[in-house]
Amino acid sequence: MFRDKIKVLDCTIRDGGLINNHDFDIDFVRKVYKAVSEAGVDYIELGYKNSKKLFSPKEYGLWKFCDDDVINRVIDGIESNTKISVMVDIGRVELDDVKPAAESPVDMIRVASYVKDIDKAIDMVNHFADKSYETTINIMAISRDKGHELDEALAQIEQESKAIAVYIVDSFGALYQETTEELVKRFSGVLKTKEVGFHGHNNQQLGFSNTIEAIIHGANYLDATIYGIGRAAGNCPLELLVGFLKNPKYNIRPILDIISNSFIPLRDKIEWGYIIPYAISGMVNEHPRAAMALRKSAEKENYREFYNSLTGQDID
Amino acid sequence: MFRDKIKVLDCTIRDGGLINNHDFDIDFVRKVYKAVSEAGVDYIELGYKNSKKLFSPKEYGLWKFCDDDVINRVIDGIESNTKISVMVDIGRVELDDVKPAAESPVDMIRVASYVKDIDKAIDMVNHFADKSYETTINIMAISRDKGHELDEALAQIEQESKAIAVYIVDSFGALYQETTEELVKRFSGVLKTKEVGFHGHNNQQLGFSNTIEAIIHGANYLDATIYGIGRAAGNCPLELLVGFLKNPKYNIRPILDIISNSFIPLRDKIEWGYIIPYAISGMVNEHPRAAMALRKSAEKENYREFYNSLTGQDID
Repeated sequence: MFRDKIKVLDCTIRDGGLINNHDFDIDFVRKVYKAVSEAGVDYIELGYKNSKKLFSPKEYGLWKFCDDDVINRVIDGIESNTKISVMVDIGRVELDDVKPAAESPVDMIRVASYVKDIDKAIDMVNHFADKSYETTINIMAISRDKGHELDEALAQIEQESKAIAVYIVDSFGALYQETTEELVKRFSGVLKTKEVGFHGHNNQQLGFSNTIEAIIHGANYLDATIYGIGRAAGNCPLELLVGFLKNPKYNIRPILDIISNSFIPLRDKIEWGYIIPYAISGMVNEHPRAAMALRKSAEKENYREFYNSLTGQDID
Repeated sequence: MFRDKIKVLDCTIRDGGLINNHDFDIDFVRKVYKAVSEAGVDYIELGYKNSKKLFSPKEYGLWKFCDDDVINRVIDGIESNTKISVMVDIGRVELDDVKPAAESPVDMIRVASYVKDIDKAIDMVNHFADKSYETTINIMAISRDKGHELDEALAQIEQESKAIAVYIVDSFGALYQETTEELVKRFSGVLKTKEVGFHGHNNQQLGFSNTIEAIIHGANYLDATIYGIGRAAGNCPLELLVGFLKNPKYNIRPILDIISNSFIPLRDKIEWGYIIPYAISGMVNEHPRAAMALRKSAEKENYREFYNSLTGQDID
């Protein structure tokens, strides 16, 4: 699938940070940045911009805050055409702390929002766009939040926001091909001046295939992570996406190398991927938080009881 | 997706047997049979019928041969509506050793065939159908073997064979949604009197989604294995398929239980699933045998060199 407008965004460090308190060391992040750059991936997202008044740097790693000077230490001396992205949550960032793009290593700011907060997301996006950042709105929990309010939110984004792309975020890993197709068509039907993006979770081993489905129906901004790392079941694996795209600008080999050298050992220390309680969360369209709690308990392999607890059933 | 004609076939023991020389003990197979039966799955495939003149029972486990008396020991005393299937390869079975269906615990015999051997497959299928078995033809390596010969083979199967279903077998895990759709339409366009089946491999995490794609376009015979066990990357996971089908005749809980109790420990002993060299095999549409050899070598995590060896490239 070759299409010039396709942009791949690696969010290994940002989404992976959700399973280790954003505590990757600088050397590891430099290795990821180097591999992603050599692979020709269009964007890399390193973490969140959060207010230090709300979250203590003693409790969280560097990628909860993504200070410009920390990002500069990551990219220093590494040849790259990969743009830098950070994510912000509604109400968690001090807008005035964010310098104009010209004074920052950051190229893009993505605003994560639920449908109900779209007004605030548009305000934030426009604030950052006025500071000359590329901006996107990433609509979370889309598998649940897709009533009429979604249509209104999309119309409002189209009319009022300066975002260049709007992402479908399958936070619960609950979408299938048909629901992905329906959403991409719904988004692109309204967003005539913006690109559609897709961020899949891999609860049901559908992160990659839903990303392909989104591509088929016209989505051009695609998230993925190395070896699928990410919260709970993780994400669309970058290596599979690059293998599929067959675009000569991408090179899979540096990604294969960093999996060999860094992600195979890392997977022995922190858990993500195809794990039954996360699969169940996806099937029943629930946030993975209950499954994440289960995985930290002595009941971590008691799948039947977990399934019954989520479905409200205890029949045999 | 509720459709009455859909039949799920669990091939945990048959395809899983390809990674342990078909050497599951009777007690384990009884547990799988009980779980699959309680789950309401339509068929269970236990292994291959192979000639003991060609393969020594000293070198292979029971499921390389699937003797009727061994199958009787598995099913004895377990309540079940699940039919029993075995697979045969062209030229590896003594036809005269197979008793009429009425004298055997086996309900279905599936003939695995390449396109080039379709004449022989039809002969075998008709032989077993005349002994009152349900029969299918499973066309292997379909991602490569899909030229004009495939159309001829399908026409011949439709006209001459007594098979009730013909399977698309994605032996290399190389199909994507669009190629799956194209193949299902091609099969069902010719096979007016037969069902289309789908057997996916999971090299690129597409086993489940390709199975969904096959269902969408009309395939009704669907293979899956518990926790995705199977050669190399394994198969479409049965638990995901049952979760998707939402047919009240299926119950996911016994499958969850046997994963908890038996497949999590088993996965620590034998390897299958999302493993990069198998993903690469799928991307480049190759048999997994080179990747399987790599995984047994000291170079098992040297993905770059493996990728280069398969693509005939060594550029950086």
